[in-house]
This record gives sequence, C-alpha cells and structure tokens, in this order.
Amino acid sequence: MSNAFFIAVGNKLINFKLNTYPPIFSEKLKELGIKLNGEITIPDNIKMIIKALRFASDQASIVIICGGLGPTFDDLTKIAISRYLKTPLIISKKVKNYLKTKKNEKIPEEVIINQSYTLKDAKIFENPNGTAVGQLIKKNKKTYILLPGPKDEWETMWEEIKKHLKTKNKIYSAKLMFADIREVELENLIKPLIKKYNKVEYNILAGPNICQFNITSTEKDILKKLICDIKNLADENFYSEKGETLEELIGKILINKKLTLSTAESCTGGLLSSKITDIPGSSRYYIGGINAYSNEIKIDIIGVNKKTIEKYGAVSKETAIEMAEKIKKKFKTDCSISITGIAGPSGGNKKKPVGTVYICVIYNNKIDVIKRLFLNRDRIFIKTASANTALWILYKMIK
Amino acid sequence: MSNAFFIAVGNKLINFKLNTYPPIFSEKLKELGIKLNGEITIPDNIKMIIKALRFASDQASIVIICGGLGPTFDDLTKIAISRYLKTPLIISKKVKNYLKTKKNEKIPEEVIINQSYTLKDAKIFENPNGTAVGQLIKKNKKTYILLPGPKDEWETMWEEIKKHLKTKNKIYSAKLMFADIREVELENLIKPLIKKYNKVEYNILAGPNICQFNITSTEKDILKKLICDIKNLADENFYSEKGETLEELIGKILINKKLTLSTAESCTGGLLSSKITDIPGSSRYYIGGINAYSNEIKIDIIGVNKKTIEKYGAVSKETAIEMAEKIKKKFKTDCSISITGIAGPSGGNKKKPVGTVYICVIYNNKIDVIKRLFLNRDRIFIKTASANTALWILYKMIK
Repeated sequence: MSNAFFIAVGNKLINFKLNTYPPIFSEKLKELGIKLNGEITIPDNIKMIIKALRFASDQASIVIICGGLGPTFDDLTKIAISRYLKTPLIISKKVKNYLKTKKNEKIPEEVIINQSYTLKDAKIFENPNGTAVGQLIKKNKKTYILLPGPKDEWETMWEEIKKHLKTKNKIYSAKLMFADIREVELENLIKPLIKKYNKVEYNILAGPNICQFNITSTEKDILKKLICDIKNLADENFYSEKGETLEELIGKILINKKLTLSTAESCTGGLLSSKITDIPGSSRYYIGGINAYSNEIKIDIIGVNKKTIEKYGAVSKETAIEMAEKIKKKFKTDCSISITGIAGPSGGNKKKPVGTVYICVIYNNKIDVIKRLFLNRDRIFIKTASANTALWILYKMIK
Repeated sequence: MSNAFFIAVGNKLINFKLNTYPPIFSEKLKELGIKLNGEITIPDNIKMIIKALRFASDQASIVIICGGLGPTFDDLTKIAISRYLKTPLIISKKVKNYLKTKKNEKIPEEVIINQSYTLKDAKIFENPNGTAVGQLIKKNKKTYILLPGPKDEWETMWEEIKKHLKTKNKIYSAKLMFADIREVELENLIKPLIKKYNKVEYNILAGPNICQFNITSTEKDILKKLICDIKNLADENFYSEKGETLEELIGKILINKKLTLSTAESCTGGLLSSKITDIPGSSRYYIGGINAYSNEIKIDIIGVNKKTIEKYGAVSKETAIEMAEKIKKKFKTDCSISITGIAGPSGGNKKKPVGTVYICVIYNNKIDVIKRLFLNRDRIFIKTASANTALWILYKMIK
C-alpha cells in the first residue's frame, strides 16, 4: 500500500492555530488506497522545511506540503523544495497568463510574476480562490504535492490532483456510531470480535455519551462482515455506519413521516434546539422551543404546575414529563423533548449531584422518561451529553 | 530564547484524532520564556520515533515527546528514546514502589514491572491518573521530556516539570478580542502600528464576526504600549485583552449591575441562549428564551403582531423589534435580545439573500436594532456570527 506524509508550513500554525488538516487528508487519501503515515508542522523557515522534506521522503512515497506558497517574503516553501529537489523555479507562461486573465480579480504585476515561478516540469493546478497554484512533481520515485494553505484553495484543486494519485489498492472504512454507552464498555464488547479478523485497523473516539468506532480494511468483504457482527452485538446502541449525527438522522425521519418537533430545555439552555437547527431544512419539522432557565418560566410560560416543582423539584422525572407534555400541546407538535438537570459547577446536592439529568420524549401518546448521571464532568460536557442523549431517545422512538 | 519541539506518538493521532496539544504546549512554554518551534505526529514505530527525535533535537534544545508510554506491545516510545540517546532502560525501584502502593488501584504485577523501566538517571514525575510516569533527562546539552498521552495524566505532572525548565527570558503575550470587524480591516488598521515596534510577533485568528489578535513580545513595556495604541485605534470593536468571550464579560456585567436577560431566537435556533448558558452562574441573570422557528410561534407564543410579519416579513427590522419587546415583557427581564434571519442554504431571495440577519437588543428603554449580511457563508457560520454579533450589541449597551 502507498504511504503519504503531510507537512504543514506556517508560523501561525504552531502557536495559535491548530493544524486541523491531517485527519482530513487522511480521509481523502484513504479513499485512494493511500495511508497517511504522519505529519510535521513547522514555521516558515527554509532550513526546517528542507529537513522536513527529507524526513517525510524517508517515510513515504507521497509528500504533501501545504502552506507558505503566498507572494510575500515569509512564504518560503517553493524555494525550499526547489533546493531540496535540486529543481529550478522558472516562470511558467501558462500560470502567468492564467493569473493575468483571472476573472473578477486585478492581481498586481509583482504578485503575478512572483506566483508564476513554479518548479520546472511540475504539473500545475489552477486556483480559482487565490493566486498560489498547486504543483505536483515526481522525482527520485517520490511524488511531491505543493498546496496553498487555505482550505477553500486546495479543496478545489484536489479533484484534479486525485487523478495523479491512483493506486491499485483500496482502503475501505466505516464510521460506526453508538449512543448512550461508555467507551470502555463498547471496546470490551467489540475487542474479542475484532481479534477474529485479520487486516482490520480500528479506533474509538468518545464524545459526550456518543462513541464513534472507526474501522478500516483493505478487504471489502471482511469489513462488511465485521460491521454486520458488530451491529448484531451492540444493536441497542448503534445508529449509523456512515458517521452521521443523530440530528441528521432524526431530520430525515421526521421529514419522511411528516412529523413536527418542539423542545423545552432547562440545563441545556438551547443547545438541543441549536443542534436540531444545525441541519439544513430543519424548519420543515422543528417548530420551536422554550428555554426555561428559571422556574418562573417553567411555570408561567411552559405551563408546568407550580405544585409539581414544589413537590418534586425542578430537576425531577415529574417536572420533565410535564415540560414535554405542555410544550407539545402549546406548540401543537407530534413529538416533543424536555431536558431538566444540574449542569454545575454549583447547584448540586447529595441527593441530586451535579450531572443529574432528566429527559422526557413524547411521540404521539408514547412517553419515555429517563434519568442519567454524568458525574465528575464539566458544564459543557453535561450540556452536550444531555442533548445527545435526548436526541438518542427521540431517534429510538421514531425510527 | 530557548526553543522546544513537540513530538506526538500514536497510531490513533494521525488517522482519526486531531493532535490538539501543540497550541496548549505553546502557551505553557511561552509562560516559561520558551518558544515552540514545531511539532511532529507519527505512529508507534521505533524507527520513525528515532528519526523524529533526531529532527526535533536539530531544531530545539528542549524536546517534548508525548504518548506511547503505556504497558502494551505497541507502546514503543521508551525503547526508541533509549536507543536514540544510548541510555539504558532500567527498573526504577522508586517507580516500582510508587506503583505498588498507589491508592485505589490494583495494578497487575506485569504492568508494574513494565512501567518501572525508566531511562537511567532520568528525573521521574509521578502520575496519579495512570501507570506511566513522566521522565526528564538531559543529554548532549538537550533536555528530553517524556509524557503520557492523556491530558489528565501529563497535566498533573506539568507543575513539577516546569521547575526544571526555568529560563531567564520571559515572553509576554496578550489576546486582544474584537467583534463586528473583518480580519482584513483589522489587519490593515493594526499593521502600520506593529511596524513601529521591534521584538513583537503577532497573528490574527478570525472566527464568525469575531477576531482574536495575538501578540507576543520579550519586552513587557513594548507590549503594554502596543496594546494601548491598538486599543486607541480600534476602540470601537475592542472588548478584551485576555481572550475572554463576550458571554463571559456580559455575565460579569449583568451580575454586577443585577440585571436579567431573555432571548427570542429564530435563525440561530437556540445557539445564542446556549452560548449564554455555557457560563457557570448564568442562571443568576439568564431567565430563559423562546426559539421561534415557525411564524406561528413568533405570533402565538412570543406575541409578535401577525400584521407585522405579513407586512414586513419574518426577517425584518420590525419583526426583530417586536420579538425583543415582547420577550422582554413576557419574561419580565431588564434586557432582551432577538435574532431573525436566513441561515440557508435555501429560503433566500434577491431582496433578502441567505445571510441576511436582523438583531434587536433592548436594555431598559434603549433599543438598538441592526442588520447584517453574512454572505456566501454556510449555515453554521451564519448562526454563529449572528449569535456573536447579538452578544456584541448587548455588551456595548450594558458595559
């Protein structure tokens, strides 16, 4: 299987910005049967870029170097690779003409000249969103790809570049999604199964009450069989093999079944509704919701009985049920979700510690109410885990 | 000034997980007067780890290597560094005793032995949250620091490690925050100013209608003067020099002035209220809000006049004002915010394209209503930019 190595160049990257590209390129290369072997992030410094090129060339047959292709004095990637490969930079007439005739843009003459310097014999990839063209050059049995830093610039040229990277191998992958199960539990469940199979790599990423189980294999049939086995084993918590989000899946189902949805949130403070409305077209099924942070709003606006809160507390099964019932009626929807809990850091007590959350979901006349404890977690985790769990309960009910 | 280089080791890191540590270490090192020069991420492979150690040692006097210190067969960092430094791994009695007597844990004998192997003469740092101890060794005028991968494990030992990294230099830094101004505008404004100063490094990070301007300098007075100059120049958009968020600042002001807040959201669908409630203690001032995704909810629940929507549209100045007025009254708060707009991808037209947003903020009897166009942006950007802008308008009004 072919290997690739990724180099990110830029002073900004190290100190303030995250280099978010490696997992993106890993995915893109995987589709082509190429494995990403590692990555280096370094500042705009010729000597370091040359050393990084040497390091990368030692590890892989494809080297992708991204950033430092701009027209200013601190953009040094072209010079470094020219020195490393002992290949001159020459003015490309093709690039010069391309930059001169670019639509909607007047590029200063000096920038055009600077950006027309490209590696001799390199394949050129046009850049509709900037002045730095992409370049691909093969030397010493290695392939070097130069890409501009901004995503919208290299993304447009990737389709063309792909054609030069075709390999015989293919890597197949799946992103299995699970909710309401702990990472260790899921791993213990799946590990013995994985051992039965060869040629499979896996990895688990855990989010707030969500687990993503990534598997890759060079064998399509093995992967298929494994997915099937895992699904059977962890059926109760599984929801997607394509890495979809719960809000995405819920959106599709609600549109299909022509159902509407409303929300009543306390501790999540609008996070649940924000997740729901992240999905394009959510206005077709999401009518709206009430964020009732204070008890007065729960009583006066949602319509929860004052006595319920006095007797059972705002964070209780009974209040959760009433919140969901009342919002469903008030907003005239087919489904409703309510969440009430203690996000912390204060507000907890022995009986109801920080992380105690009640969720109620109603679909027509079916009611499901659950309690979850997200202990020893921070506010953002508790909010996100609560919202994810609420989406999960709704998904199970309507799917 | 001392330089450091960061190496992250782990198969997981490349393909699925982001290596999020470099900016964190960059910050931590900066406090000590040490500059992070670059980073490498590689899989658990002895040869590659050795090459990475060589690369890093060439670039910096301090090498931090993180991950691959566990007790399983694929943890190879210790072996690699032992070979690279030609320093043997020996069983440390101190570590062995420490692991044997760890509270609340029964570590299997084989793990204890495996994890007791440490570099000869290395300084050891205890790990309350795992079995892999931290190690620090000085050789050939370089300092090598070995850290376990999980953040909660290396973070606890960092305080101790710091003491061995003290330098004479200090790096001073500031995170200046600006809202409602474009990155290019801000850069054009500040660039001429920066040129006047020596020994200053800067960088701008742009978020949705928010800019973070990071500056560092070895000279405290220069930094102070520069901050002062920048503030004077971009006063209208400035809000923090410590990287605080608007929701944080708003929270402090509302508590100080004993004011309460409510929200009425359409296109942001709860994102604004979720941001507000990310702040611990927000229940002291945030009463609640209504997410009115459909017009019926705007009319029936918030109380916007049906005729207003018919005449001006749901996305209009007039509707925004009524939403803010009605929610303020209904929720009996001192301040209120409303947002109505078109988040796309569909729903736009020539007169009101996708990205058109109206925001209204009321504080007592003061009303501010604005229109913003976030054109050619995706749904999530438009939602986030709208919420940020709304917070900005409120901040300006109450500060």
